[in-house]
Amino acid sequence: MRELAELLLDGRLLTAPESIEAYRRDFVPDPSAGMPCAVALCASAADVQASLRWATRHRVPVVTRGAGTGLSGGATAVDGCLVVSTAGMTDIRVDPDARVATCGAGALNASVKAAAARHGLFYPPDPGSFEISTIGGNIATNAGGLCCVKYGVTAAYVLGIEVVLADGTLLELGGRTVKNVAGLPLLPLFVGSEGTLGVITRAHLRLLPAPPPASTVVAVFPTMSRAGEAVVAIGRTVVTSMLELLDNRTINNVEDMRPSGLDRDAAALLLAQTDAAGSGRLEDAATIGRLCRDSGATELYSTDDLAEGDLFVDIRRSTGPAVERRGSLLPEDVGVPVDRLPQLLARIEEIAAELGVEIPVVAHAGDGNAHPTIVYDSDSEDRARVAFDRILRTAVDLGGTITGEHGVGRAKRPALESQIGSGALRISRLIKAALDPEGILNPGVLL
Amino acid sequence: MRELAELLLDGRLLTAPESIEAYRRDFVPDPSAGMPCAVALCASAADVQASLRWATRHRVPVVTRGAGTGLSGGATAVDGCLVVSTAGMTDIRVDPDARVATCGAGALNASVKAAAARHGLFYPPDPGSFEISTIGGNIATNAGGLCCVKYGVTAAYVLGIEVVLADGTLLELGGRTVKNVAGLPLLPLFVGSEGTLGVITRAHLRLLPAPPPASTVVAVFPTMSRAGEAVVAIGRTVVTSMLELLDNRTINNVEDMRPSGLDRDAAALLLAQTDAAGSGRLEDAATIGRLCRDSGATELYSTDDLAEGDLFVDIRRSTGPAVERRGSLLPEDVGVPVDRLPQLLARIEEIAAELGVEIPVVAHAGDGNAHPTIVYDSDSEDRARVAFDRILRTAVDLGGTITGEHGVGRAKRPALESQIGSGALRISRLIKAALDPEGILNPGVLL
Repeated sequence: MRELAELLLDGRLLTAPESIEAYRRDFVPDPSAGMPCAVALCASAADVQASLRWATRHRVPVVTRGAGTGLSGGATAVDGCLVVSTAGMTDIRVDPDARVATCGAGALNASVKAAAARHGLFYPPDPGSFEISTIGGNIATNAGGLCCVKYGVTAAYVLGIEVVLADGTLLELGGRTVKNVAGLPLLPLFVGSEGTLGVITRAHLRLLPAPPPASTVVAVFPTMSRAGEAVVAIGRTVVTSMLELLDNRTINNVEDMRPSGLDRDAAALLLAQTDAAGSGRLEDAATIGRLCRDSGATELYSTDDLAEGDLFVDIRRSTGPAVERRGSLLPEDVGVPVDRLPQLLARIEEIAAELGVEIPVVAHAGDGNAHPTIVYDSDSEDRARVAFDRILRTAVDLGGTITGEHGVGRAKRPALESQIGSGALRISRLIKAALDPEGILNPGVLL
Repeated sequence: MRELAELLLDGRLLTAPESIEAYRRDFVPDPSAGMPCAVALCASAADVQASLRWATRHRVPVVTRGAGTGLSGGATAVDGCLVVSTAGMTDIRVDPDARVATCGAGALNASVKAAAARHGLFYPPDPGSFEISTIGGNIATNAGGLCCVKYGVTAAYVLGIEVVLADGTLLELGGRTVKNVAGLPLLPLFVGSEGTLGVITRAHLRLLPAPPPASTVVAVFPTMSRAGEAVVAIGRTVVTSMLELLDNRTINNVEDMRPSGLDRDAAALLLAQTDAAGSGRLEDAATIGRLCRDSGATELYSTDDLAEGDLFVDIRRSTGPAVERRGSLLPEDVGVPVDRLPQLLARIEEIAAELGVEIPVVAHAGDGNAHPTIVYDSDSEDRARVAFDRILRTAVDLGGTITGEHGVGRAKRPALESQIGSGALRISRLIKAALDPEGILNPGVLL
């Protein structure tokens, strides 16, 4: 340990059990989380290199950690591991003419957004955690968010990274150009690799011109299948910058926490936004409203006022805290082709009824990406886990995915093969072995 | 050979020298192209599997080929190789509610566009070759085009692929969902891998709602640096669906071929389009015009008429044929951070003067991606090759890339390490060795 402490030139090493405790888990309350031997608070790529060389020399497993906001246990510690924290590398530089932000892995997503905004520019990715999660973690999980339906996931904004491999090699992948096909596409292999291939220390991020303030359309549906029809019709017709769905249980959870006058009897509420240029957004908002009505919406509200629209976005963002009041939670993150969303949601309702557990759902509906949250207490914990597995199986059966944006981590590793198959798993292991031959990086995650 | 011919259940094998001749080269007239032992015209994934198993068994190199429109020699045959053609797998199915097109690797880009359009949907990627190039080739090279400035490159539209590995293993990577982070990101590793990791046989492609007809702005500049200023200013302010630049030599080449009244004295012509929703595009077009004027445009033309706008797009698309009349050509495809485009173009002009060769340039200016074309004859061929290398070096020196969208192929392999470094090259070789241990797939390309 002293050897490693001395190797960290810019950062420092935590070894006291009481200071390590906070680094054992991400947002998944995993009771089997291990106890690290130490936490390296890295302040530079050189620190990360020193940490990984030390870990390779001593065959110590390495768990990389940004802000620890992950929802799939990708940053859960294993016994005796070294936690490498990149949270301290927070520098951000914006080059407005090139439309590129360059930042340390520990820069918060919200800080990058703010830095870009000061130049009239926009960093779109907006995972639910954007105010507290790091760019390094966002890249390692290829984080999504509400904006993806128009702007895509994190991968679409990563032009280049600096990454440290298990043996301490520092690589620069990609760069600062928008287009670049020089060599095997190594860069995207690391985006979403959940700390299993290397430690990301720095990134070049693509920025867009700031969009105009969005127009908002809210629609209430008497059945989930009519809401699903609207989602398909909107997706075929206009580009929305947000298309979110709240089911009946979620509406009621939100109303319980902060009464907002939502219709507690509604089967589903759709929240759509468009940030199209100029007056185009008024025309698009009108189209969205018409398509909702045509699909059977019983109530419709539309506003071009940003503050009013933000109230609805706040309601959407409050669905997390609202469900937290209901009990212990197993958060899900499944995806299906967008037209199969109603089937997925119907089956989730059946699973909830079969097992006698509550499963409120919010969905990035425009992308077919749903977040059912299984609520449980000590009596229903076993049934909750059965529900978790059944939902994963349902998603795969519908041609979908066990994770749209949270990652596999430890929580979904057992289910991965059912989706990607043994062939893809074998190739993944070959690549892992080629890049991390000792297998020290995040063992037990993904593979 | 007879063994292989019998293994092809759906396709057929060409072995006669006269029928093989056409499969020796892509669009690069490489005099060192080898003579294949045979060409497998595959009509199914099973054919491709049989071909690759046969090739592995007999240690025969495999060169995969779509339409053969590549510009970097990625499909140049080597002596004794088996050419695997996927051009015959042309089926296309569109699922409009899921907004997904599923097609064989041999489907033409234009056919996918047309199939999508029949459902009011849009497949954006538009490499210059889109009318004659295949989706398989587009994916293998991660092809770009004019639309990338708004819509991104091919990778942004590939939701899933079916790919055959060197040993004949058939893998399904990704799927039909928009978001999917299940497992190591293997899918993007294959997008742009230029036939070195596997043979793509099928793809699921993401579609968008058809955009409205675009508005067009054309601006003429007295100096390249003023045009560069306009490109930066536009890029910081509005989202254009096209932002192309023609330099003075290109303008004159086009005028020589088909007089259109372009200003032969202009240093640069910018062609911008916006397909923003509703009347938003009129507002965006006005903004683009204002920014061009503010940057010093001496002439400005703007139209909301699609047919008129198409005339200018035709002029842009005719720059290829126009330069072909000038002599033999070495096409380049370099990229830089967008604010460095003027420096790149200034240096290219110097290189042309130093070496006494003509180098007209067109650029996907909004992405910082330039296509200088080096014109040569038998007297200047050596100098042309020196110019080619100097331009590559210039792009790297400016923090850019040796290839923005054409790929490395054989033509740029010697320059690759100067950009990506020895570390990334080593990792690439490790991955190549893990997936293609015998090294039979496209030897000499990329790595």
